[in-house]
Amino acid sequence: MDLDLLSSLAIENETKVVLVIMDGLGGLAGPNGKTSLEAAHTPNLDALARSSICGFHDPLGPGLTPGSGPAHIGLFGYDPFRYLIGRGVLDTAGTPFVFEQGDMASRLNFATLAADGTIADRRAGRIPDEEGKRVTELLAENIKEINGVQVLMQHVKEYRAAAIFRGKKLDGRLCDSDPQQVGHKPLEVAPTEQNPTAEAKEAADLANTFIARAKEILADEQKANFVMMRGFDIYEPLPNFCELYKWRACAVAAYPMYKGVSKLAGMRVIEEGQSTIEEEIELVEREFPNTDFLFLHVKKADSMGEDGNFEGKVGVIEHFDRLLPRLMDLKPDVLCITGDHSTPCRLKSHSWHPVPICISAESVRADACQTFGETSCLTGGLGRIHSTEVMPLLLAHAERLMKYGA
Amino acid sequence: MDLDLLSSLAIENETKVVLVIMDGLGGLAGPNGKTSLEAAHTPNLDALARSSICGFHDPLGPGLTPGSGPAHIGLFGYDPFRYLIGRGVLDTAGTPFVFEQGDMASRLNFATLAADGTIADRRAGRIPDEEGKRVTELLAENIKEINGVQVLMQHVKEYRAAAIFRGKKLDGRLCDSDPQQVGHKPLEVAPTEQNPTAEAKEAADLANTFIARAKEILADEQKANFVMMRGFDIYEPLPNFCELYKWRACAVAAYPMYKGVSKLAGMRVIEEGQSTIEEEIELVEREFPNTDFLFLHVKKADSMGEDGNFEGKVGVIEHFDRLLPRLMDLKPDVLCITGDHSTPCRLKSHSWHPVPICISAESVRADACQTFGETSCLTGGLGRIHSTEVMPLLLAHAERLMKYGA
Repeated sequence: MDLDLLSSLAIENETKVVLVIMDGLGGLAGPNGKTSLEAAHTPNLDALARSSICGFHDPLGPGLTPGSGPAHIGLFGYDPFRYLIGRGVLDTAGTPFVFEQGDMASRLNFATLAADGTIADRRAGRIPDEEGKRVTELLAENIKEINGVQVLMQHVKEYRAAAIFRGKKLDGRLCDSDPQQVGHKPLEVAPTEQNPTAEAKEAADLANTFIARAKEILADEQKANFVMMRGFDIYEPLPNFCELYKWRACAVAAYPMYKGVSKLAGMRVIEEGQSTIEEEIELVEREFPNTDFLFLHVKKADSMGEDGNFEGKVGVIEHFDRLLPRLMDLKPDVLCITGDHSTPCRLKSHSWHPVPICISAESVRADACQTFGETSCLTGGLGRIHSTEVMPLLLAHAERLMKYGA
Repeated sequence: MDLDLLSSLAIENETKVVLVIMDGLGGLAGPNGKTSLEAAHTPNLDALARSSICGFHDPLGPGLTPGSGPAHIGLFGYDPFRYLIGRGVLDTAGTPFVFEQGDMASRLNFATLAADGTIADRRAGRIPDEEGKRVTELLAENIKEINGVQVLMQHVKEYRAAAIFRGKKLDGRLCDSDPQQVGHKPLEVAPTEQNPTAEAKEAADLANTFIARAKEILADEQKANFVMMRGFDIYEPLPNFCELYKWRACAVAAYPMYKGVSKLAGMRVIEEGQSTIEEEIELVEREFPNTDFLFLHVKKADSMGEDGNFEGKVGVIEHFDRLLPRLMDLKPDVLCITGDHSTPCRLKSHSWHPVPICISAESVRADACQTFGETSCLTGGLGRIHSTEVMPLLLAHAERLMKYGA
């Protein structure tokens, strides 16, 4: 899908669209031969499926498993291969930090270094938020620039923070310094390309200098006496979601990463600390009158999948199902329920399996799908579409796309 | 599918994949309303289909009929439009000949020229192998170079051979010299492009000189007194299948062309002269422990289709079905059964119809498909994918692909 073309066809009107992404929604059959979505008692989702058009979307394409970034980027209509966002930028975007174009961001993990120079704890004993904030502040006060490049610090959560380098053209194609195992020495940051650019070499020098200086500053800390860097990436703004599609878009998500990807796309992100689905729904109800496109992210289905907790995933889906009538009471013109990717409990990880999707709108064509599940969606009228085709469909059902050509 | 991207996600592990390509597997309904695959008694394939995910692949896309080269190239994951292999290179690759980059290969058919200069027999009375070898040798001894370009000869089978031109940059976009009908004079080899390159003009001169000299050398032959050239192509190595996907790949095929295309992809090709499916299966059993990806080619389904022999095709499929348990006993982590294209008996030729495919692995999602056939595969969970999407799926089910993006 050519974004410029899509944008050129987009028009403003009064319709409203709600997109619910249940993270990791898709699954594989559990012990009873049903997936979590199928095993869950979901009278409201099933009723919605009967009056909707159902099917699947492929986040990236057959066989390809997406990270959370590409999976959301695709559903927002952006080519996930063209707009790949590194971990450093993605995690930082979920904080109040305000990026400038060209910033190089890196995730920072506070760690414990043993006397012999090996990593004793990759998470510094999972220090709590206040401790993490304090050591982040300590670094911020003592490292304001390196070699003429401004250094900015941002605490993320617990032992996690971010370092942002600003003011010079840099190349973020760098390896992580995290050896991924305790008992090993931290790695030098180095360019990943065989023939690295001068900007990548300079960026690696900056990172290694940063790590050395942080080590000195943190020398007296009991736990967080060291930092490791990962996910280097240069911030480049995405085409603005609100300008592209000519609507006011708002994101409600409990986890920083999903707030981050929405913010990167240019959505208005509700920053309040909602954490339960109820709290999220309350915010949706509050924001609905002031928005045209509302993205609601439900995280826990994925977490349960990653834990291999089949019943837990069933519970999250049933929990959402009980709250679904409140979304329907808002009477959005288009309501789409899907996942960003599959997270089968059996695999305990993201997977490549197509994701069930259900689109409810006046203008959908009827299909035979009677329940919302991986097997029933095979009879859905949508068939199997690519994630980037979801946004054009939502716009179309919202009557927000003009005809192409005469 | 971007091959570089796919390769960057591929990892090594201990899993094993078997891909069975039953040549020309897909068909159209015969007199009893069933296709050969449906009419065949295939208890083992049907049982496999029940525990697998089924569907179709399009070799090139709706309406496009592939030759054997593109049909295999696509299933191996290469873009069949980007990597088009000419007949000269494809047929030569099936022989022990070792290509060098830039070689120009052409198929050579020995023919009988009448006294009036027209073609009397396009296959020189289908001379047997030893006769074909003898006249190929005769040419090899007498034509070692033309205009400073080295000429290499390779016998293929019976009246078929290949001529390879080496040592100069040439352009293989040339027409065939075969007039395709007896009673017609052979054609001049000429560039096919409207504005041919100098390299194409030089290549045409080389070919016409070769034909003229071959005619002199063969003047005393009773049958093979002339040669016709076709399928000019320049050899360019394909991205290496083993390096791309980071596994040891092995091909078992009875026919030279399929050995050739596997060799061009960089697979280890079992050169022994297996010809029955039993003999092929024995080799698969022998090679399985030493390989991660095993490609088994079953030719005869296509041959029967080309002959319009409906019952013959049924017989080949039933024959394979009886041997399928031996493949399953090897317990590959992923077993995929499909065809390279359809060859409906009614059309007696390759066709564009989507090809049934069945993928068996722990991580496949259940579908409603109860038998392996063109009608039942319509209910399969795979839906309709492109041939180039098969390889990413096999890699994914073998847990050989990393997640893309954070």
